[in-house]
Order: sequence, then C-alpha cells, then structure tokens
Amino acid sequence: MTNSIKTKIKRVPKNAVYELERINDIIDNNFICHVGFIHNSSPVVIPTMYGRKENFIFIHGASVSRLIKNLEKGVEICIAITKVKALVLARSAFNHTLNYESVVFFGKGNLVAESDKLGSLKVISDHVLKHRWEEVRMPNQKELKATKVIRIEIDESSAKVRSGDPQDSKSDYSLDVWAGVLPISNNFEAPIADAQLKKNIGLPKSIEILFGNGKQ
Amino acid sequence: MTNSIKTKIKRVPKNAVYELERINDIIDNNFICHVGFIHNSSPVVIPTMYGRKENFIFIHGASVSRLIKNLEKGVEICIAITKVKALVLARSAFNHTLNYESVVFFGKGNLVAESDKLGSLKVISDHVLKHRWEEVRMPNQKELKATKVIRIEIDESSAKVRSGDPQDSKSDYSLDVWAGVLPISNNFEAPIADAQLKKNIGLPKSIEILFGNGKQ
Repeated sequence: MTNSIKTKIKRVPKNAVYELERINDIIDNNFICHVGFIHNSSPVVIPTMYGRKENFIFIHGASVSRLIKNLEKGVEICIAITKVKALVLARSAFNHTLNYESVVFFGKGNLVAESDKLGSLKVISDHVLKHRWEEVRMPNQKELKATKVIRIEIDESSAKVRSGDPQDSKSDYSLDVWAGVLPISNNFEAPIADAQLKKNIGLPKSIEILFGNGKQ
Repeated sequence: MTNSIKTKIKRVPKNAVYELERINDIIDNNFICHVGFIHNSSPVVIPTMYGRKENFIFIHGASVSRLIKNLEKGVEICIAITKVKALVLARSAFNHTLNYESVVFFGKGNLVAESDKLGSLKVISDHVLKHRWEEVRMPNQKELKATKVIRIEIDESSAKVRSGDPQDSKSDYSLDVWAGVLPISNNFEAPIADAQLKKNIGLPKSIEILFGNGKQ
C-alpha cells in the first residue's frame, strides 16, 4: 500500500492511520460506502453496500444503474467509509468535534466476470451478515443477469480515527461548562419477522449469533 | 425545486421522494454528509458535519483544508446524506436490501462572509445539538480566522426512502426461510463526562432534553 500525495492526510495528522490491519478493521466494521465518480463532467456521490475480501472491495447493483454503468467502464472513483461514534462536546464552540472512524481510498472498478459473479455476491452477503448466504434461495439465471458486480482494489487508502475526551484550550478547563462525549449507538436491534412469514420458522443462525445464540 | 435529468431517480422509482418537506426531514434527521467534488481531475469524497437553515446547507472546516479550499472556489459538488435503518432479509438472496433514507443534491458552494460567519456556525451547532451553542465559550478572533463556512443552496435534490418488509417473488413465500427486518439503532446514548470535568457541573440543557429532562 502506497501513500501518495492524494491520500496523505494533511489536516490533524495525529488522527491519521496508515496500518493496513486497522484500515481493514474499519472497512469490516461497516457495510455502507459512498462512491464518488465523475459523470458528464460533474461529481456524483452514491451510497451503496459493499463487501471486502483480501485487498478488494466488491460492490453490486442493477446492470442498468448509473453507478454500475460508470464503474464498469473503469472510471476513477473515490470511496469513503465513515462511522460516527460520538459527539465530542468541548468547553469552547471551536473545539467541538466528533469521534469517528473513516477510510478513504481511490481506485478504479473492474467488472467481475460471469464465472466469478456468484462468489463475489457471496462476499458482499457474508460481509453484511455472516451465514445469511447459506440460508436463502440462490439467485437464478434471470436474477444474475440483472446484477453486476464491480471489484475495486484497495490501493491508496488512508484512515482517520478520533476517540476519547474533548481537547480544550488550557485556559478553558476552568470554565463552568459541561464537557464530555455523547456516544451514538450503531447496533442491530431485535429482528422483526415479515408479516407474511410462514408459521413455525425460527430465527436463523445468521441472526441468532448476533444476539448470543438467540438470547437477545 | 427543479428535478433535472441529473437528480431524477431512474432506479426503483417507487422509492423516490421529491417533496421538499420530506427531503428536509431527512436532512434534519442527520448531521453527516458526504461531499463529492473534482480535485486535479479526480473525484474526491469527504465526510463532514453540516447544518441546514431554510434552503441552505452550511459546512465548516479549517481554512487550510482541502475541502474548504475547493468549495470556496465555487466548484461543482454533489452532497449525499444517508441513513441506513435496517437490513431487509428476504427469502431469496436477490431480494435482500436495506431500509434507508437518502438525499442527494448537486450545487456549488459560496464562502460565507466574515460578518455572517458566527451566525452560520450557530446554524451547524444548533443542527447537530440544539441549545449547545448557548452553553459554550464563543469563538475568539483567532479561532474564527482559522475556520471558514461554506453555504450551499439545496437546489436540485431528490430523496429515496425504503421501509417495511422484504418483497419476495411470489413463489418464494412458501419457502422455509426466515424473512424480516433487522433494525439498526442510531441513537444518542448516556453521556460520558470528560475525565477533567470540574466538580459540581451537572448535565447541560442540550443533553437533558435528549433524554427527557435528564431521566435517561
């Protein structure tokens, strides 16, 4: 992994993370990214699901979608993955900030070949919810045809992480202002069965393991 | 608000929302956006906080940051605001999706004049956490100088919303596969005081009202 001028973090460099393992952790703790590309000379940003396998991100979509039609051409893209974990409330307005984890990387997409499509879709499914792939009806030929998968190498990537208490100016610590962190939850909550679910179908393994074997 | 070809939603048009009030609701229920722009001929996506007032989004940042230095030039930008609310688990792999709220709009930034800077920073602060602005030390001249605010008119915007149960193919409803919705929480959790907080400082109004007057 190289860090050219494009991904070198200039602002607040103490928040920068360049270690591959930590970057992969951040990628694996999320499943939504924002993909930026240029379409008709204008910037476009589209949120979408992804999965990671090794040094690659996989994105899927309808074959006819603007996202896929651009990415399969191999245009330059920028991908941002962001999780906000808390508001950081300082004593001064100026030092308010967020605790967050963020990865940004640049690359180009490659259309996944038909023969690899099913395996790549499994990568995305496993990334979002492990074991779900084994529980569901597999895509048929018509569904596979309607879907394309794009593979992007995670090459020039960099991450920023901020955590912990606010950092106020020294003289502000004596102010009578409450300061601290206001965490933001980001967890799966108890599942809600489909109104049309057949009777006597229990929770699947993919959900049970999220809640400690169904204890919830 | 116009809807040119750029923001007209082509994929899954039943999820499209064009009503201004609903779009503003989605904008007001979030405070992080992803800003896309073109820098040295490449697409760049940067996550940042925002505030809304009337038909404008306000973004702030260090005067020397790449984001601000580009936006103050008035370059074309695309802003995406996304909240994922649930995994939608269908009986078929193909019909898996997300419940979400998403707004995308295009525009150009304008640098907010010095005389309006403080008021614009208050818009962002109020948007993220109401009443906080009145509780904290106001920015001094040095801090104000280090910060710039960009105002973007919400012109061509469109939103997509998906909610509710999975939509499976008719023949799949008889399968012995659990289907339903797995909600994702996104709430403020109990505040954590700064380790260096002065004694006898209670929770401020900005936090108390989040938890029903401090009941938490």
